[in-house]
Amino acid sequence: MKVIRSIQDMKQLMRDYRTQNKQIGFVPTMGFLHEGHLNLMREAKKENDVVAASIFINPLQFGPNEDYENYPRDEQADVLQAEKAGVDVLFIPTVADMYPNPMLIQLGIKGRTDVLCGRSRPGHFDGVLTVLTKLFHIISPDKVYFGLKDAQQTAVVDALIDDLNFPIELVGLPTVRETDGLAKSSRNVNLTEQERGEAVWLYKGLQHGRQLIRRGEQNPDKIIHDVTETMNHHISGNIDYVELLSYPALEPVSSINQRIILAAAVYFERARLIDNLLLDKSGEIITRYS
Amino acid sequence: MKVIRSIQDMKQLMRDYRTQNKQIGFVPTMGFLHEGHLNLMREAKKENDVVAASIFINPLQFGPNEDYENYPRDEQADVLQAEKAGVDVLFIPTVADMYPNPMLIQLGIKGRTDVLCGRSRPGHFDGVLTVLTKLFHIISPDKVYFGLKDAQQTAVVDALIDDLNFPIELVGLPTVRETDGLAKSSRNVNLTEQERGEAVWLYKGLQHGRQLIRRGEQNPDKIIHDVTETMNHHISGNIDYVELLSYPALEPVSSINQRIILAAAVYFERARLIDNLLLDKSGEIITRYS
Repeated sequence: MKVIRSIQDMKQLMRDYRTQNKQIGFVPTMGFLHEGHLNLMREAKKENDVVAASIFINPLQFGPNEDYENYPRDEQADVLQAEKAGVDVLFIPTVADMYPNPMLIQLGIKGRTDVLCGRSRPGHFDGVLTVLTKLFHIISPDKVYFGLKDAQQTAVVDALIDDLNFPIELVGLPTVRETDGLAKSSRNVNLTEQERGEAVWLYKGLQHGRQLIRRGEQNPDKIIHDVTETMNHHISGNIDYVELLSYPALEPVSSINQRIILAAAVYFERARLIDNLLLDKSGEIITRYS
Repeated sequence: MKVIRSIQDMKQLMRDYRTQNKQIGFVPTMGFLHEGHLNLMREAKKENDVVAASIFINPLQFGPNEDYENYPRDEQADVLQAEKAGVDVLFIPTVADMYPNPMLIQLGIKGRTDVLCGRSRPGHFDGVLTVLTKLFHIISPDKVYFGLKDAQQTAVVDALIDDLNFPIELVGLPTVRETDGLAKSSRNVNLTEQERGEAVWLYKGLQHGRQLIRRGEQNPDKIIHDVTETMNHHISGNIDYVELLSYPALEPVSSINQRIILAAAVYFERARLIDNLLLDKSGEIITRYS
C-alpha cells in the first residue's frame, strides 16, 4: 500500500492509474478506522481495480464549539488496518496543503441539512461539501463509498454528485452492527456497562418502527410516537430526535409511499449515539444505496 | 465534428476519449461565436488531441433585469464556424438537461466579484461558477480556454480551479482586436459610425496608462486619472469605470509592483463596451495567462 501525503503526488499517481484505464474506488474517512470503514474498503476492493482511501480531519466541517483538536487520531493503526482491508493508496494530506489560503470559493446546500443531526450543526455540511469536492478532484474516482450510518451525509453527497454532474457513482453501504444489533461506532467505548445494555434499544426501537410499517402502518406520526415510546421505556439517556423522512430528500412525508429513513439520536452520559434504518415503502431494508 | 446534445452522451464520449488517453481541450461559450471564440478554439486545437466546445446560454448567470431571452443566438452559423476552427465535439445541452430540478448545491465566491463589471451584476458569477463546474465534470478536460477580454471571469475561474483542486489547466488568451485596436465584440455592431470612431479610445486610453507604467509611474490613482481624462476627451459616451487592480486577486494596489489589470467600461448609446490590459510590473502585456 502506498501512503501519499502531497496533493501533487496524489494527482500524479491517480493520473497514472487512469492512463492504465484502472477503475478507481474511493473511501474518504477522518481516520480512527473501525469496522464500518473497513467494510467500505473491502467492498470497494471487490468492485474496483484500485482502492484509494483518505484520512483527513477536515477543520472546515467542525463548528466553533466542536472539538477539532481532540478528534481521535491513530494514524499508525489506521495504516495497518487500511492495508489489511485492501487499500492500494492511502492519501493523508496536511491541512496546509488542502487549505493553503482562506477559501474564496464557497459551497453550500439548500435543504437536506436542517433535519436530523444537521439541525444542531450549522455550516457542518458546507465544510463536508468543500472537502469532498476537493478530494474528488484530486482522486477522480469512478465510485465513492459511504456508510449509511451517516445517512444524512450520504444524502448530501448524493445532491453534490447529481447537481454538479460529477462523473462518480455514489455507493452507500449498510451500517455494520454488533451481534446484538448496536451500530458499531468509536463512541461505544464511552458507554457505561448499563448504558451499553440499553443502547441496543436504539436499534430495537427503530426495528419496532419498521415492523409497524411492514404491518401496514402508514401514519408517520404514529410510527415516530411508538418508536420514541419504545426507546424511552428502555433507555435512561435523553432522546435527541426520532425522525421519519423521505430519502434522500429528507423531507417530512404524510404516508409511507416511498423510500424513507427512520432515524434517531440519543444522549448517554458521555456519548451521543445515532442510528437509522433506510427502508423501501414496504419496510424492507435497503442494503445498497446508489 | 460531432454535435452532442445530451449530458449522458457527452459524458460517455469524453470517457471514451480518456480511455484512449487523448488530451482534451475545452472552450466553453454562450454561442454567437466571434473571432475571440474561434481564436480560443484554434489555439486549443494546437495544444490538445481533442477540442470540445460548448454552447450554452446559462440562465443562472443572468440577473432579473438582464435579458436572457434576447441573448443573441445563431446555432447554425456557430456549428459551421466551430467546425472550421477545429472543434471535434460541440456540446449543446438543453436547459432541462442541465437544470432538471432547482439546484440544491450552491456555489459562490468571496472576493474578485465586487469590482469591475461584477459590481453591477450581483449573483452573476455564482451562476458562472455553477455552470462551469457542471461542464468541467461532464467534459473532464485537461485544459480550459478563456479569453482575457473578460478578465474578471478568468480570475474567478482561476479561483475555482485552484480552491477546489480541479485537475484542469486554465489558459487565458489575449483579446482579439480590430486593426485599429478596438476589442472585437458582438456588441460593436450596435455602435453608430461616430461612436465606432470614438470607441478605439477605450483601447488607446488603456494603452496610454500602460505607457505611463512603462515610463515608471507607480501611482495607481494618477494612472486611473490620466486614462479617464484621455477617454473623456475622445469619447462622447459615459465612462462606467476605469480601474487598476492586482490580478487575479482583483484588489486595489498602492503601487505597480505586481501583475495588474487596467480595465475600463464605457456606455455608448446602444452598447456598453469593455476592454482591459493585463500587465506585468514593468508594463509588458501578458499574452498567455495560466
